[in-house]
Amino acid sequence: MSGPALRGVIPPVCTPLTAAGELDVPALERLCGFLLDAGVDGIFVGGSSGEAALLTDRARAAALTTVVGVVAGQVPVLAGAIDTSAPRVLDHARTAQRLGADAVVATAPFYVEVSAREIGAHFRLLAGALDRPVVAYDIPSNTGRKIPGELVVELAHDGVIAALKDSSGDLTGFRRVLAGTRDLDFACLTGSETLADLALLSGAHGIVPGLGNVDPHGYVRLAGHARDGDWAAARDEQRRLTELFSIITVADAQRIGPISAALGAFKAALVLRGVIDHPRTCDPLSPLLPAEIERIGDRLRSAGLLPVADLR
Amino acid sequence: MSGPALRGVIPPVCTPLTAAGELDVPALERLCGFLLDAGVDGIFVGGSSGEAALLTDRARAAALTTVVGVVAGQVPVLAGAIDTSAPRVLDHARTAQRLGADAVVATAPFYVEVSAREIGAHFRLLAGALDRPVVAYDIPSNTGRKIPGELVVELAHDGVIAALKDSSGDLTGFRRVLAGTRDLDFACLTGSETLADLALLSGAHGIVPGLGNVDPHGYVRLAGHARDGDWAAARDEQRRLTELFSIITVADAQRIGPISAALGAFKAALVLRGVIDHPRTCDPLSPLLPAEIERIGDRLRSAGLLPVADLR
Amino acid sequence: MSGPALRGVIPPVCTPLTAAGELDVPALERLCGFLLDAGVDGIFVGGSSGEAALLTDRARAAALTTVVGVVAGQVPVLAGAIDTSAPRVLDHARTAQRLGADAVVATAPFYVEVSAREIGAHFRLLAGALDRPVVAYDIPSNTGRKIPGELVVELAHDGVIAALKDSSGDLTGFRRVLAGTRDLDFACLTGSETLADLALLSGAHGIVPGLGNVDPHGYVRLAGHARDGDWAAARDEQRRLTELFSIITVADAQRIGPISAALGAFKAALVLRGVIDHPRTCDPLSPLLPAEIERIGDRLRSAGLLPVADLR
Amino acid sequence: MSGPALRGVIPPVCTPLTAAGELDVPALERLCGFLLDAGVDGIFVGGSSGEAALLTDRARAAALTTVVGVVAGQVPVLAGAIDTSAPRVLDHARTAQRLGADAVVATAPFYVEVSAREIGAHFRLLAGALDRPVVAYDIPSNTGRKIPGELVVELAHDGVIAALKDSSGDLTGFRRVLAGTRDLDFACLTGSETLADLALLSGAHGIVPGLGNVDPHGYVRLAGHARDGDWAAARDEQRRLTELFSIITVADAQRIGPISAALGAFKAALVLRGVIDHPRTCDPLSPLLPAEIERIGDRLRSAGLLPVADLR
Repeated sequence: MSGPALRGVIPPVCTPLTAAGELDVPALERLCGFLLDAGVDGIFVGGSSGEAALLTDRARAAALTTVVGVVAGQVPVLAGAIDTSAPRVLDHARTAQRLGADAVVATAPFYVEVSAREIGAHFRLLAGALDRPVVAYDIPSNTGRKIPGELVVELAHDGVIAALKDSSGDLTGFRRVLAGTRDLDFACLTGSETLADLALLSGAHGIVPGLGNVDPHGYVRLAGHARDGDWAAARDEQRRLTELFSIITVADAQRIGPISAALGAFKAALVLRGVIDHPRTCDPLSPLLPAEIERIGDRLRSAGLLPVADLR
Repeated sequence: MSGPALRGVIPPVCTPLTAAGELDVPALERLCGFLLDAGVDGIFVGGSSGEAALLTDRARAAALTTVVGVVAGQVPVLAGAIDTSAPRVLDHARTAQRLGADAVVATAPFYVEVSAREIGAHFRLLAGALDRPVVAYDIPSNTGRKIPGELVVELAHDGVIAALKDSSGDLTGFRRVLAGTRDLDFACLTGSETLADLALLSGAHGIVPGLGNVDPHGYVRLAGHARDGDWAAARDEQRRLTELFSIITVADAQRIGPISAALGAFKAALVLRGVIDHPRTCDPLSPLLPAEIERIGDRLRSAGLLPVADLR
Repeated sequence: MSGPALRGVIPPVCTPLTAAGELDVPALERLCGFLLDAGVDGIFVGGSSGEAALLTDRARAAALTTVVGVVAGQVPVLAGAIDTSAPRVLDHARTAQRLGADAVVATAPFYVEVSAREIGAHFRLLAGALDRPVVAYDIPSNTGRKIPGELVVELAHDGVIAALKDSSGDLTGFRRVLAGTRDLDFACLTGSETLADLALLSGAHGIVPGLGNVDPHGYVRLAGHARDGDWAAARDEQRRLTELFSIITVADAQRIGPISAALGAFKAALVLRGVIDHPRTCDPLSPLLPAEIERIGDRLRSAGLLPVADLR
Repeated sequence: MSGPALRGVIPPVCTPLTAAGELDVPALERLCGFLLDAGVDGIFVGGSSGEAALLTDRARAAALTTVVGVVAGQVPVLAGAIDTSAPRVLDHARTAQRLGADAVVATAPFYVEVSAREIGAHFRLLAGALDRPVVAYDIPSNTGRKIPGELVVELAHDGVIAALKDSSGDLTGFRRVLAGTRDLDFACLTGSETLADLALLSGAHGIVPGLGNVDPHGYVRLAGHARDGDWAAARDEQRRLTELFSIITVADAQRIGPISAALGAFKAALVLRGVIDHPRTCDPLSPLLPAEIERIGDRLRSAGLLPVADLR
């Protein structure tokens, strides 16, 4: 499998919605431009930060079309095909292929409890039916079960998957996959916002941080320090980003869930930075309250993140 | 909300597939006929036992069309609209309305962690946009979180939902909902195969047992004993059914997950009884092995379940 | 194993403490007298409702001595020997034997994750070293893992354990153990406050409800209805008790944990009924607030539970 | 609170047992000498790797006495006081003080579900009653709940605790505590075997790896590289140690639990290295099988860990 280079900083792009809850195409275009200007190495559309599992098929396809159009081949576009089963994932993935995605990203099956063997069968079915590299997306907080590290290594060796996006928070397991795939043309990407420096020190090929929507420049700098082997500088940049990441905790946890709090914070920060127009998330996710958004503004200022002047 | 009577025995009908994995319409017709002949009071199509969350939109719609056609108004048809978010559920639910469903069944959002308040907002959005009674389907093993009992009671009092299908296994919570909705025109249905007698003694209005596909006559008898207040007889019938339910444990739990084991067992039993043709489940769920299916045959014989002679 | 009859209503007696946190011997004597007067069939001292896992060894021994003294052979006394490992449980259990316990109750090991096989080895070690019947206490909410039903059945058949106290909330599993031990001299006891009627309909030999400290007469009546096969009357008594059980929810769940809320409520109710003097629980469990205790008083009045006039 | 320096490499010493399951004092003395010779900066006796929560009070005290005697003031001795509640922890902690421990280590309460506030009250009670620095031991896999990072920071600021031993595996949370206690004389120690380098890069003051019993020299080297700021060398040493750590996975996970597998592997490795005499663990933990021990020998050889020639 010789696919696109899946490395570096690859933000999982948010999906801006209008006040009415429809896809906001101009805002998504501006957001993509903002990320490209910051020097990202790829864009992942249709991931968890993009609320893709929640969007209608129409909105998913329109978002991908928009991103592919703006990116125009400058960097690889990874497209999420997140759904419960192989036939449903294939429906999304075939659309993504047709619309120009460079790679397809799929999680383990969810809503149903499956065995490790069945997770393996799932990825083998996908790879056998698709013409693009398949990225395994390990996000047990959402799917209910972890893709076992040994299975990832096995699928990598068999050429079934081209990369892992690890959003499990388990760095020990991530390191085991790194060790087990060292000799392969296989990319290990971390989805962590707060351990990106440590993942890179451990050998990760790329990072896919949701917070990268808000501060892509920070993660691009962090990745640069890592490339230079300056781990103390990478750690210090990480500290600043981790402090910024606290914007996901300003919402009242009794009122809204952690996903609303995180995605709402990303979008509110993008509104405050002037990149998108509305902080709205997909129903039934709750919006942040004005006072909560104000606190996000305070934290952006502390982090030195001013409104963006000109966007493509 | 004055909807159809959602009471009695309402099996969540399996979705027979062909060897190629397509919907097997004639087999589904036979299965519906088998259930109706046994005297069931309703049919729930598109539930977890029907693998509905895994099927493509095309297969879901075709299954509902088939069931509505066979049932032809004899009993209510409940249609599952199982998906992650409000817009996605609405897409399924509007199709279900158009195809003739008498009620729509939806779970809490999944893949994303939501608050209780957001679950409430979800059902309010659905009810506000649909013309059919909405049934809340509580299945935390699949969605990752329980619909709190107090929320169910609140939504019932507000006329948002017309019924609860409780597959949580929490009889204490179920009883609390029963107590809290006593004065309403609200139906409490249990999804338990093994505690149906106890749920009915507790006041449940109906039962929705997956095993009811295999032995609908048994659950119809059980419900009859309950109607007569003969709780010892209901318990004894339940014991027989619980023993039969052990067919879901014949598969090797290292090899396949519990959903494959259960749904595969129901389908294999229906094949052995001569109702459907193939035991196949949706990818990537694994099929049972021949030796496992043989053991299911043994248990059917012990339970006195012979092949069905004539089916409509 | 021919031991004492472990059947009927066996409250897990609370351990009254003084304001200073020491064992309140006179209060414990009054509480035992209250339970005996109500007609209970046994007393379980040193269980979870007795805070036994939290008490010092001195307090545990003193509580057992007190109960054995008051009971004076009228009914069996079961003594908890709750600790992490076999040697630690044996230390407690040998003391309990010496002090006059009729049976010893032990959980699965905790603090360490063990296999089913190791849980089995644990009970075999205990039974081999003790002269009293051993009761397996299944309380996964506290130990972190369930004792598998098949293991209970195996240990029962091998004469290792004489009874099961099931506080798992899993009625289906409880029924499986009942079915698997039907031909043995083995007692299946439920620890549920809210499903006691259903457990008895299912064939349980006894009930061990923590709420039985507060309203022993209610559970004695419920057990009487069950003995008479009057399941509707048992259910109605259960409904009243379940409503009373809501006293465990009056405390603010942000402030104190569920154990403090439940044990504090039992003790506060016993203070209000005039049976014991202080509602204090073991450090660091938090006491209820005065306003919370007032609400408990309201619910006692609704349930018709007046202060007890004369206690032995 | 000006206590002993709690920094550097502080192995949680194993507790060797005789074939009969009694404390093996000479073996424990040899093991302490082995660790001191390797250059460790402290010894933690009575931790989870020491099976302390499982040992009788007599064995715990004897182990501590032994370690204090061998160490003889060369490095600080931390003593675990692991039990369910404040009074029980205090019983252990007072004994530990009397026997010469330099600091006392306690977990959150367990067996009972407590609130964050109650965990705070627990540590305040301990600190108020003891004359030694208190170390908070965060090990949610064993206690069932995490000590919230904000609580750790609050307790540190209030002078209640002198250090955190973090065995939660949550590096993001660990980094938050590091950030929140930066200005205090407070030690953040990680219990991770596999992320020690990353914890040190993040600013940890020390490491407490169970595998440090088997290869103390390796962790001392790793800590040295970290002190020198040579993060690539630290990572490479970590890789070697992580590979060695796979000895905890040689046992059959169906047969024995993960604690037996890990502690049994540490002890078997120490036998093979000639440091202790028996691999036995505390009942009911299962011993490894001979074939499993053989595989551990292979991995020791791969890691270049030969039998130790002379031990004090």
